[in-house]
Amino acid sequence: MITLTSDFGLKDPYVAEMKGTILTINPKATIVDVTHEVEKFNVRMGAFMLASAAPYFPEGTVHLVVVDPTVGTQRRAILIQTAKGFFVGPDNGVLMLAAQNQGIKHIYELTNPALMLPKTSSTFHGRDIFAPAAAHLDKGVAPTEFGAELKDSVKHDFAQTKKRKRALIGEVLHIDGFDNIITNITEKDILQNHAKTVSIKLPRISLKLSFSKAYAEAKTNDPVALIGSHGFMEIALNQGNAAKKFRVKVGDKVVVTIV
Amino acid sequence: MITLTSDFGLKDPYVAEMKGTILTINPKATIVDVTHEVEKFNVRMGAFMLASAAPYFPEGTVHLVVVDPTVGTQRRAILIQTAKGFFVGPDNGVLMLAAQNQGIKHIYELTNPALMLPKTSSTFHGRDIFAPAAAHLDKGVAPTEFGAELKDSVKHDFAQTKKRKRALIGEVLHIDGFDNIITNITEKDILQNHAKTVSIKLPRISLKLSFSKAYAEAKTNDPVALIGSHGFMEIALNQGNAAKKFRVKVGDKVVVTIV
Amino acid sequence: MITLTSDFGLKDPYVAEMKGTILTINPKATIVDVTHEVEKFNVRMGAFMLASAAPYFPEGTVHLVVVDPTVGTQRRAILIQTAKGFFVGPDNGVLMLAAQNQGIKHIYELTNPALMLPKTSSTFHGRDIFAPAAAHLDKGVAPTEFGAELKDSVKHDFAQTKKRKRALIGEVLHIDGFDNIITNITEKDILQNHAKTVSIKLPRISLKLSFSKAYAEAKTNDPVALIGSHGFMEIALNQGNAAKKFRVKVGDKVVVTIV
Repeated sequence: MITLTSDFGLKDPYVAEMKGTILTINPKATIVDVTHEVEKFNVRMGAFMLASAAPYFPEGTVHLVVVDPTVGTQRRAILIQTAKGFFVGPDNGVLMLAAQNQGIKHIYELTNPALMLPKTSSTFHGRDIFAPAAAHLDKGVAPTEFGAELKDSVKHDFAQTKKRKRALIGEVLHIDGFDNIITNITEKDILQNHAKTVSIKLPRISLKLSFSKAYAEAKTNDPVALIGSHGFMEIALNQGNAAKKFRVKVGDKVVVTIV
Repeated sequence: MITLTSDFGLKDPYVAEMKGTILTINPKATIVDVTHEVEKFNVRMGAFMLASAAPYFPEGTVHLVVVDPTVGTQRRAILIQTAKGFFVGPDNGVLMLAAQNQGIKHIYELTNPALMLPKTSSTFHGRDIFAPAAAHLDKGVAPTEFGAELKDSVKHDFAQTKKRKRALIGEVLHIDGFDNIITNITEKDILQNHAKTVSIKLPRISLKLSFSKAYAEAKTNDPVALIGSHGFMEIALNQGNAAKKFRVKVGDKVVVTIV
Repeated sequence: MITLTSDFGLKDPYVAEMKGTILTINPKATIVDVTHEVEKFNVRMGAFMLASAAPYFPEGTVHLVVVDPTVGTQRRAILIQTAKGFFVGPDNGVLMLAAQNQGIKHIYELTNPALMLPKTSSTFHGRDIFAPAAAHLDKGVAPTEFGAELKDSVKHDFAQTKKRKRALIGEVLHIDGFDNIITNITEKDILQNHAKTVSIKLPRISLKLSFSKAYAEAKTNDPVALIGSHGFMEIALNQGNAAKKFRVKVGDKVVVTIV
C-alpha cells in the first residue's frame, strides 16, 4: 500500500502523473491520498498531516510525500525505513515527524538511476524519482538497492510545549477544515497536570473552559476545549468557526493555565 | 465495495485516516469517494448526495456516511441493511433517504466494541466506529454481530411536492457545481400533469419555458428547464450560472404552473 | 486501468456515479482521477490535462474524458483506439491532443445501446454512455462492438508556436496551481534555436532571463524561466505567484527573443 501527500492540489495533472508512474511499475499497488492540499511549500504542515494519518495504515505501507520547495537543488532524495513501514520524499524534514513516531531504523539516499524514470526532470522529482521508488519498494525491492545509507538527515523544528508553574505554553499547530484550532499541547500534558478547568490565552481572546468530551456538549457557536482525535488540545466552536471568530492563525502562542 | 460521503473536505487527513482504518482491517476493500464536500453539518445535503449516487453502485455495497454534528453525544451509531446493500453512519437521518429507496430490512445499533478501533475518541466516530464497521461488513461479518436490532430511527424531513389546481409547489433541493438549480419536483410529477410549457416562479424571477432534453438546446446563457440525470426538474442557463443570476438558494420555493 | 478527467468538480456526486457505473460492470477496474477541476466547459484545458497525464499510464489504459458543453445535442460520442490505449468521450476535440500523441489507429462512434446504461439521460452521457463504454473496453470488449468506424472527428485548434527571425512566438497554455505560467513553446523549440539567455515579452512585462534547471535556483520570489516537467517553457517565481504578479492569463501572447 502507498499513501500520497503533497502540496500539488487537485486541479493539475501532477498527482495523476505520479499515480500512473506507480501503476506502470506496480499495477497491483493500492494508492490512498492523504491530502494534496498542504499549503504550498509548507513543510511543517505536510509533516503534521502525514504524522496524523500514518498510524492508521497497515504495516509495510510506503508513505510518499512531496512538499519540496528546493526540488532540483542539492537537497537529497531519501527513503526512511522504520519499524512499521517506509517513507519516501525530499530530505527537508517533511518525513521526520511521522518516521520518528514509528522508530527509524535506516535512512538511504535515492541515487540508483535504475529505480527512477529513464528521464528525470529537475522540477518534478515526485513523478520521476519518488513515485518510482515507492512503487519498487511496495513491490519488494530491498531498501539497500536504492543508494547508500545516510547517517544524518534534515530535522524540522517542531514546537515543544513548555511548563511554567501552573501554565502550559504551546502554539497553534493547524487550523482544520472545520476551523477548529489544533494546538501542540497533548493529552499527556493535560492529564499530567490534572487540568480540568483552564484559562486559555490566545493572542486576541482569553477563555475559561472545562474540558469537554464532544463538540456538541456546548451550545451551537459556543466555545469548547477538548482533546481531539489525534491527542492534541483543540479549541472549537460547536458547529461554528473558532479560528475565524478568535482571529487565530498557525504559529500563534497558546497559554493554558490551570484554574 | 465501500463508498464514503462526508463533510470533512480534502484538506485535512481525516478521510485518509478512515481509509487507512478500513484497509488495515480489510486490505482488499475497494473504496470510492462519493463526496467529502458536503456543506459542514448539512445532514440534508449529505442525504441527497448519497441518495443520488447509491443507485449506481453494485449489490452488497456498504455506504459509509459521516455528516455528524452531534458526534459524541447520545445520538446512536447505526447500520441499516437494505434489499440491496448496507448503510453505516450516525442516526441523524443522513442515511434514510438512500436506504428507503433500496427498501430497509433491518436497523442495528453499533455497540460491539470488538468491531471498533481499540481506542475510540468522542470526536471522530467516522474513523473509530463507522470505518471499522464498514470494513468488517464488507469482509462478511453478519449485521447481527454489531449490536441490537432497533425498531425506530431518526427520519429527516425532506420536502414533498404539493399539487394545487394547475400548479406544482416544490423547493430547491440543491445547487450543483455548474450552478444548476435542482428542485424536488420529479419527472413523475411533470409527466402525470402533462406539463410541457410551464411558468416557473422562483423568489426573484418568473420564467416561461418549454421542457428541453439538453442544456445546449438553449442559446449560451439562455435559461432551460429539463429533467436532470437524477429525475428531478432543473433550471439551468446553458453554460451559465443559473443560481447566481436568479439569486436562488437551497430551500427556496418553486411554483410550476402548466400553461 | 481507467482514468477520469472532467469539469464536474468534487462537490457533487457525478464523479462517484461514473465510478459506481464502471465498477458495477467491471468490479476489478482500477480507476485513477486525472482531475475533475477542469474549468467548466473548457475543452482546451481538458485536452491539455489529459495530454500531460496520459504518457505516464500503462499500455492498454482507457482514458475517459467528460468536458462536454453540448451533451444531448447532435455531437457524437466516440472511442479512439491508439497504438497505446483507448480514449472515450465526446467528439468535440477534447480527446484529440492526447490521442494524436499516441498515434490514432481507429475512431468508432458509440451507438450500441447494449453497451450503455439501460436508461440514458440527455444530460449526463458521462455516466450513461462513456462510463459503461470505458468499463466494457477495460473488460476486453472489442472496439468494433461499440459502433461504426468514423473517418473524421472534431479537431480542436491548439496554438502552434511561430518562428520570426530571432524570436519564438507562442502563447500561455495553462496557469497551474503553483501559479506558474506554462507556455506552448517546447524544449525542442528552445534547443533548436540555441536559446540560453532570452528576453521574454508578456503583455504586461518584459523579462531577461537565462534558463534555469530548477525553481529554487532563483532567490525566493525572483523570476525563473525553465523547461517544465512536460517539456514546455515555464515562467515562474521561486515559491511565488508568477501569473498573479505579471497579470498573465491563459491565451496571452509570449514572445521569446534570443539575446
